[in-house]
Amino acid sequence: MSGAQRTGNTVRVHPRLSLNQATIRRAPLADAVKVTVAAGVGSIGLWREPVTDVGLPAAAALVRAAGLRVSSLCRGGFMTASEPAARRAALDDNRRAIAEAAALGTAELVLVVGGLPAGSRDLAGARQRVRDAIGELVPDALAAGVRLAIEPLHPMYAADRAVVSTLAQALDIAEQFPAAAAGVVVDTFHVWWDPDLLAQIARAGSAGRIASYQVCDWITPLPADVLLARGLPGDGHIDFGPVTAAVTAAGYRGDVEVEVFNQAVWDAPWADVAAAVVRSFAEHIPLPAGAP
Amino acid sequence: MSGAQRTGNTVRVHPRLSLNQATIRRAPLADAVKVTVAAGVGSIGLWREPVTDVGLPAAAALVRAAGLRVSSLCRGGFMTASEPAARRAALDDNRRAIAEAAALGTAELVLVVGGLPAGSRDLAGARQRVRDAIGELVPDALAAGVRLAIEPLHPMYAADRAVVSTLAQALDIAEQFPAAAAGVVVDTFHVWWDPDLLAQIARAGSAGRIASYQVCDWITPLPADVLLARGLPGDGHIDFGPVTAAVTAAGYRGDVEVEVFNQAVWDAPWADVAAAVVRSFAEHIPLPAGAP
Repeated sequence: MSGAQRTGNTVRVHPRLSLNQATIRRAPLADAVKVTVAAGVGSIGLWREPVTDVGLPAAAALVRAAGLRVSSLCRGGFMTASEPAARRAALDDNRRAIAEAAALGTAELVLVVGGLPAGSRDLAGARQRVRDAIGELVPDALAAGVRLAIEPLHPMYAADRAVVSTLAQALDIAEQFPAAAAGVVVDTFHVWWDPDLLAQIARAGSAGRIASYQVCDWITPLPADVLLARGLPGDGHIDFGPVTAAVTAAGYRGDVEVEVFNQAVWDAPWADVAAAVVRSFAEHIPLPAGAP
Repeated sequence: MSGAQRTGNTVRVHPRLSLNQATIRRAPLADAVKVTVAAGVGSIGLWREPVTDVGLPAAAALVRAAGLRVSSLCRGGFMTASEPAARRAALDDNRRAIAEAAALGTAELVLVVGGLPAGSRDLAGARQRVRDAIGELVPDALAAGVRLAIEPLHPMYAADRAVVSTLAQALDIAEQFPAAAAGVVVDTFHVWWDPDLLAQIARAGSAGRIASYQVCDWITPLPADVLLARGLPGDGHIDFGPVTAAVTAAGYRGDVEVEVFNQAVWDAPWADVAAAVVRSFAEHIPLPAGAP
């Protein structure tokens, strides 16, 4: 892990830094909250499973009592099923996720839209069903004051995780609905390679569609499990300067999440990981000063 | 491996099928030629290393004597170095590759353009150097009657193999030069996920830029070595119908290569692999009848 930008002996914690819970995924929610606060981080990105483990009201009380902002809830989505019962179940689950996001005090529900249904090769059909499912959820999202934050995943996950693969594609869907109901996630790990990235960030920002900016590095060689192929900013190949500048120029002033899926990170003590996140962020993510 | 479209007991070998040598990569050139002919396949895609192993004139004589077309030569490229000596060396190597392609009787030299130089995060700079290097090679290509066939590689290789990641990006480069000098490769494995794929194939075809159509399936889970994450058509998630129809509608009538990097395929007897390629192609690649 990287060096640090220090003020005296202390690394300055950027007021817009948010620790995504997946980065310390083995920590139960109470521990994750404690670690985040102890690291001086003002915001946390939550996941539904650890929230469910303690119960929604207790989870909401925990983060509120700690004075943390909740930058987003991960995750809804998985809405590519064609079979009617499976489709209904997915929509119902997304409605629960919308309600959970509202209860937790975040306006952003991250959607990982899902891959091809088992045995299907109909990519265009799966993509159409994603669009249609989002359309069905928009009234629920508007009523709850929660935004559906469509996350394009790296194209290497197109078959089995998310048929939305680029920022342009996510925006093509989001723009069919009000900006308060549908936005996009810019996660550097997933989109850094895109020749059209800076233009699409500008497009997203001009329409107020950036729901979340997540920073995470691309490391090589890819590990055996490509779901864990992520590094802290500075550990890999991504130049965070131009992307972050584009996100800022596009008008985004919200929290910036560090979300890293990496076995070595998960195996490290949580407080060490939080400290490394703070250092990595201070050194590699050139945000303007100021709170969200 | 898959079932087959048979005429009586015999699988019809499509006259435009080409066996890319990488699919039977352990076979020396003489064996690869023998296996290709024995399978009834009329065309072969060559790689430089096995050609060099026997010597260029002997290699050219071998394929000519066998009556095979050479659909392409793999590969030039690796032109992202910024250091002047390394850059000159890359250009020189590409000039040799152009000469080899001409001597082997193919008009298409496949370019894998290269990843980020070691320690560099300047993706935009690497991409600019690719464009500039191709510009420098265009006169050599025109003089030799060989086309620089820019291959967009899957975005998961953007850091370490090829900074050209989409068909649109490859076309943006190719279109700066005459169509006789610069084209693009459409390899299903690399581009199948692209929401803009069919439109970009039409764009490529209308300008006569499709230099090669390669078919190869996307399998999950990805194996530990993602360079080997490929399957024969029918073994994975790609729907070859719409892509092949788009390539045909775009006017492409050249050879169609089966190029599969897969350890299990490499470990199988070469004649079995060639037979499986013929079957897979007959069943999953809906080309119109007719020779190239």
